[in-house]
Amino acid sequence: MTKETALGAALKTAVQTMSKKKQTDMIADYIYNKYDVFKRFKPLALGIDQDLVTALPQFDPALIARVLANHCRRPRYLKALARGGKRFDLNNRFKGEVSAEEQAIAQQHPAVQQALAAQAERKAAKEKQVEQGSDAAATDVDVKDETENKAADQA
Amino acid sequence: MTKETALGAALKTAVQTMSKKKQTDMIADYIYNKYDVFKRFKPLALGIDQDLVTALPQFDPALIARVLANHCRRPRYLKALARGGKRFDLNNRFKGEVSAEEQAIAQQHPAVQQALAAQAERKAAKEKQVEQGSDAAATDVDVKDETENKAADQA
Repeated sequence: MTKETALGAALKTAVQTMSKKKQTDMIADYIYNKYDVFKRFKPLALGIDQDLVTALPQFDPALIARVLANHCRRPRYLKALARGGKRFDLNNRFKGEVSAEEQAIAQQHPAVQQALAAQAERKAAKEKQVEQGSDAAATDVDVKDETENKAADQA
Repeated sequence: MTKETALGAALKTAVQTMSKKKQTDMIADYIYNKYDVFKRFKPLALGIDQDLVTALPQFDPALIARVLANHCRRPRYLKALARGGKRFDLNNRFKGEVSAEEQAIAQQHPAVQQALAAQAERKAAKEKQVEQGSDAAATDVDVKDETENKAADQA
């Protein structure tokens, strides 16, 4: 897709007749499907904006930047930054890491605080349920919570 | 202060008898007074945490880190990140810059959004006052606003 073909050009023109909002949604779908770092909300390498523009010449660079900005402010992405650690490029390879400043800002971000409070509340509710001995219901919640934790760990 | 003298050691011991909270306040005062990048809330170079620990051996590294984390989440610092541009080290020299991701997160941060909304409100109130022809009061507000803007520009 990096070389402009007649079919590629026709596709690009067709895409550009859609509204900006629709194009942005489409680009987001495409990116979340194609790239593991986005699907799993891993910290993104610096310069990944340019990598995306190069990898996806069929899309408007301004709209790719919009998708990226939307992604970065999602609570799940902020939570990943709050955990810190390595950053990853489009090929899922290590590239740089989350700085102490970025981690501090993400940890104090209201969206992250809210998510952590909700998590603590769910945990407390689960423990209360277990204490009350409603075993069947508790097991149900257990399974769900573990799946969620696994997903969070992978992200 | 980098070499440990008898007086330095005595001072350090005296400081360590203070509560963590008092020590943190004292370190913050010291840092805001001594370093222009902090006083003016400029974007800070990566690794400035280590530079501070080296420059201030009389203080507990854990508490220096706490001061730094508090600084980074202040709305005025987030506003500086939202503007983007160069980062600065302790000697006020360029070192790296604010990434697109950092800028996007800062721009969407609730504290920044709130500050911008308050700013817009003040501006609208000022314009309304000018329209109503209450000249004396309007001039008063003008002067105050300009001082504020100047401070913001320098930051």
